[in-house]
Amino acid sequence: LNDAPLGVFDSGLGGLSVVRALWDTLPGESILYFGDTGRFPYGTRSPEVIRRFARQNARFLLSHGAKAVVVACNTASAHALPELAQALSVPVIGVVEPGVDAALAHRGTGNIGLIATAGTVASRAYEQALARKDSEAHMTSIAAPLFVALVEEGWTNTPATRLIAEEYLKVFNNGTFDALILGCTHFPLLRPVLRDVLGAGVALVDGAEATAHATRELLTTKGLLREGAAPEHRFFVSDAPEKFAILGPLFLGKAFNGAEVVAIEDF
Amino acid sequence: LNDAPLGVFDSGLGGLSVVRALWDTLPGESILYFGDTGRFPYGTRSPEVIRRFARQNARFLLSHGAKAVVVACNTASAHALPELAQALSVPVIGVVEPGVDAALAHRGTGNIGLIATAGTVASRAYEQALARKDSEAHMTSIAAPLFVALVEEGWTNTPATRLIAEEYLKVFNNGTFDALILGCTHFPLLRPVLRDVLGAGVALVDGAEATAHATRELLTTKGLLREGAAPEHRFFVSDAPEKFAILGPLFLGKAFNGAEVVAIEDF
Repeated sequence: LNDAPLGVFDSGLGGLSVVRALWDTLPGESILYFGDTGRFPYGTRSPEVIRRFARQNARFLLSHGAKAVVVACNTASAHALPELAQALSVPVIGVVEPGVDAALAHRGTGNIGLIATAGTVASRAYEQALARKDSEAHMTSIAAPLFVALVEEGWTNTPATRLIAEEYLKVFNNGTFDALILGCTHFPLLRPVLRDVLGAGVALVDGAEATAHATRELLTTKGLLREGAAPEHRFFVSDAPEKFAILGPLFLGKAFNGAEVVAIEDF
Repeated sequence: LNDAPLGVFDSGLGGLSVVRALWDTLPGESILYFGDTGRFPYGTRSPEVIRRFARQNARFLLSHGAKAVVVACNTASAHALPELAQALSVPVIGVVEPGVDAALAHRGTGNIGLIATAGTVASRAYEQALARKDSEAHMTSIAAPLFVALVEEGWTNTPATRLIAEEYLKVFNNGTFDALILGCTHFPLLRPVLRDVLGAGVALVDGAEATAHATRELLTTKGLLREGAAPEHRFFVSDAPEKFAILGPLFLGKAFNGAEVVAIEDF
């Protein structure tokens, strides 16, 4: 079982930023990635639909022998994690709790910011996780859907991107925030602009790294760490594999051989 | 049969701008609208997936007795119209041909511009329609996916919208273009900004009105015009009906009673 791959799914290709962090943190693990490009984006969909998609994605990963499932998508983590954790026979980990832990590492005033998709914000999952961990802390959340479109278009650092960032982030620029959680896998690519627009006192928290560390802890605890021969990675998408060739390197930090297409609605 | 509703489908709610134009042009017709909000957007998907979605949408409209089908979505018109026209037992009309006709009404140099989704541009459907109608004319096409996100966010006239429009439209600002086709149902909402950014000599062509006129012609020719009692309109979506209440008035020009939800994958 230890030799089995670590399953990762996302609504699209943004979750590859979590794969990149997993490569850094768990270089021995084989990764099995599914990006639901055929049904992207999740952030504007209803909770029931998101939960149905998450179940299908997890079933696909298990059908390929995944020993654990990382839900790299913030929206799916926010809406579907409790249900998946109950339904699946393998450990499941999401990006919400690790992101909140990483933000609390910078705790000062206890004011934590969140930018995410409309679906993630509406779920209140980050707020609930924060309340469980630190009842004195307080979260302010902003839905920033244009950031997703800007990254998809490759406009990560244009004058328009800066104007949009100024509009979205102005609520966080009053000098009282400890940290801003980047609650969508696309947003770390905007880090230079976000850094410029925000006061230097606000830490930018990327859920990908925090999730990779939490995954290492989980695999260690469960005795599931892989050792031995070089790992093998496989990438699947539900549509438009040619986009993997374009956006993949942006998120993975390097080019990688192609993605295979899967008919996810059959799972 | 004449009393049957006119079916209209779109990838989401943008097609409501076509309904608005149909209300103006064909005030006696009952409209049966399906917005595929659960699978929006189509503009980034592959041709095969778009054709499958279009078939399901048309089957749903026919199951409710539609006497004709208007494909209000540019991406679906571009990829699926020939197949639908062959497969369906009722007349089918798309937005591409009417949009090209409307642009050619402004013909001078024969340089016609197009802004659309990536899927519509890649299909070359507008270019092919133009070539069939006027072999001396020439089309320049730009994919403008951020415009969709800006309209969905309600940012139809902000400084960032203007910067993005300046970037997308600069190729059309050399004084040689007769007309710019707004090849996505969302784009007419950006008309004030587009008007400001473009030189006054370029006509802005909205496919919605042209499609409504072509639909009136078609119904007249086929003897399918409705007469008599007040028409009845029904609106269906595949997810998130609450968005209909928010975006609907933007596209329809007035508020309307709610949308019903349909499980489109069953059709």
